[in-house]
Amino acid sequence: MNPIDTELKLHVEEVEQILKEMFPSIEETYYKRVVDAMAYSYFSGGKRLRPMMMLESFRLFGGKNIEVVKPFMAALEMIHTYSLIHDDLPAMDNDDYRRGRLTNHKQFDEATAILAGDGLLNYAFQLVSFSMVSEKDPMMLKRKADSFYALADYAGVFGMIGGQMADIEAEKKELVTKDELLFIHENKTAALIKAALIIGAILAGADEDEVIKMVRIGENVGLAFQIQDDILDCIGDEALLGKPIGSDARNQKTTYVTLEGLEKAKKDQEQLSRDAIELFDTLPGQNDFLKNLILSLVERKY
Amino acid sequence: MNPIDTELKLHVEEVEQILKEMFPSIEETYYKRVVDAMAYSYFSGGKRLRPMMMLESFRLFGGKNIEVVKPFMAALEMIHTYSLIHDDLPAMDNDDYRRGRLTNHKQFDEATAILAGDGLLNYAFQLVSFSMVSEKDPMMLKRKADSFYALADYAGVFGMIGGQMADIEAEKKELVTKDELLFIHENKTAALIKAALIIGAILAGADEDEVIKMVRIGENVGLAFQIQDDILDCIGDEALLGKPIGSDARNQKTTYVTLEGLEKAKKDQEQLSRDAIELFDTLPGQNDFLKNLILSLVERKY
Repeated sequence: MNPIDTELKLHVEEVEQILKEMFPSIEETYYKRVVDAMAYSYFSGGKRLRPMMMLESFRLFGGKNIEVVKPFMAALEMIHTYSLIHDDLPAMDNDDYRRGRLTNHKQFDEATAILAGDGLLNYAFQLVSFSMVSEKDPMMLKRKADSFYALADYAGVFGMIGGQMADIEAEKKELVTKDELLFIHENKTAALIKAALIIGAILAGADEDEVIKMVRIGENVGLAFQIQDDILDCIGDEALLGKPIGSDARNQKTTYVTLEGLEKAKKDQEQLSRDAIELFDTLPGQNDFLKNLILSLVERKY
Repeated sequence: MNPIDTELKLHVEEVEQILKEMFPSIEETYYKRVVDAMAYSYFSGGKRLRPMMMLESFRLFGGKNIEVVKPFMAALEMIHTYSLIHDDLPAMDNDDYRRGRLTNHKQFDEATAILAGDGLLNYAFQLVSFSMVSEKDPMMLKRKADSFYALADYAGVFGMIGGQMADIEAEKKELVTKDELLFIHENKTAALIKAALIIGAILAGADEDEVIKMVRIGENVGLAFQIQDDILDCIGDEALLGKPIGSDARNQKTTYVTLEGLEKAKKDQEQLSRDAIELFDTLPGQNDFLKNLILSLVERKY
C-alpha cells in the first residue's frame, strides 16, 4: 500500500467513526425495522468522499472544533445514501446490487426501502436541527443556519432531486443534448460535492469570496467525478467497482463518453481537475490531503 | 351553509393563500416535471387541517406577525403531502385515487411520484432554512430553531415515518395488539398534529408548560382524528369521502373499530376530544375557532 493510500485509509476511518457516532441508536421494537434498513445502506462501505471533503474543507479554512461539522458530515452522507436507495428502486434504475451487496429493496422490500430513504433524508435534517437548538454562540448559529440553507438547497428540487428527475426524463429521449447532460451532471452529482466543500468552509468561518471559490471548485470536481463515472462504466474493472460495467451502453444511455468520445472525455476531465487545483492554490490555507483527494478523483478506479 | 362552515371556509381560503405563496415558482424546463408533480398533490384540495391548526395555535398564544409561521405551515403541509404520495405507491398501499383524483404515480409515473415525495420533504426543510437565514432577531431565531427541531423529530423515524413502518409491519401480522395500534396511531397520525400545535405555540412565544399542554392536546386530538378515520372507513359516505369505504375490512386490517367495536370506538373518541377541550380551556389565551375545529373532528364526515 503506497503512502497516499495509507493516509486515505486513516481519513476514511476517521470519517467512518464520525458517521457512526451520528447515527441514531435504538432499542424500541416498532421503530427498529426502518432504522435497520437505514443502517444497512448507510454503513455499506461507501467512499465517504462527501463528508471527507467537508471535514477537510473545514480544516483548510482553519476550523478547529470538529464537533460543529460532524452533524453536517453525517447529514450529507445520509442524503447521498437515501438518493442511492431511491435510485435503485424498480421504478427507477431497478438495480439489484450496489457496492457488491444487495440493494436495499432486495435485502428488505420496496416499501421498507422507500421509508428507509425518507427516514435518512429526514434524519439528515434532524441532525442539523439538534445541532442548532443546542448552539449557544450566535455567530456559530448563523453559520449553521447558512450551512442548513446550502444543504437543503443543493439536495433539493433545484439541486440533486432536479438532476435526478432530468436524468430519468433524458433516458426516455432519443437525443440528449450536451447542455442537458451538463445540467444533469451539475445537479445530480456536483450539487452534493459543492455542498460538502462550502459547508465545511462556512462552518470554519470562510469569507464570501472564499465560499464562492469553493462553489467553483466543487463544480469542476463534481463534473470531473461524474465524467470518471461514465468512463469507468465503459472501461472499468468490475471487481474493483463491485458492479457490472457496460450498463450505460446496454441501456443506450447518453453519457459524456457517448457524446464526446472516450479520449475527449478523459481530456476534459483532466482539464476540469487542473482548473479546480489552480483555484485551490489561490486559497490562503493549505490542505495537501484535500488537494491530493481532488487529484485522485481523476485516477480513481472505483 | 351554517355560520361555522362559513367561518371554516374563510380560514381554509386564508391557509390556501399562504400555502400557495410558499410554493416555489419556476420557469426552468429541466426542473419542471418534478415541481409539477409536487404541485399536483400539494394543491389537491386537502383539508389543510395541520397548517390551519398551526396558525390558530400561533394566534392563541398571541402571535401577531404571521410571516414567521407561514414557512412552517407550508413545510408541515408538504411533509403531510409527501407522506400521502409515498403511502399511495404500489409498494405501499397501492391506491389509484385520493381525494377523488388519480394518485400521483397514476397521474405521472412511479419514478416521478417517488421524486415528487422526496422533493416535498426536502423543500419543507428548504422553507425552514430560508426563514432562518433571513432572521435578524436572535430570540426569534431561537424559536425557529426549536420549531425546526420539533418538525424534524415528529416527521422522522421516531415519529411519522416510524409509525408508517409499524403500520406496514402490522398489516403482515395476524394479530395486532392494542398497544401496537396505539403506537401506530400516535406516530403515523398524531405526530404531525402535535407538530402543528406546538410549532404555532413556540413561534408565538408560549412557555414550556404551555408547549407541554399543546403536546398533550395534540395526542388526544391526533388519536381521536385517527379513530374517526377508522370509523369513516366503516360507516362513512363514499361521495363525501371521495374514496370507497370498507378498504380496511377488505384488507383485513386491524383498526380501532375492529379491536374495540364501533360503539366503544365512538365513545373513546368522544372522550379523547373532551379531554383535549378540557386541557384547552386551562390555557390563558382564547381561540374559539381552534376550539370548534378540534370539536368538529369528532363529527367530521370526511
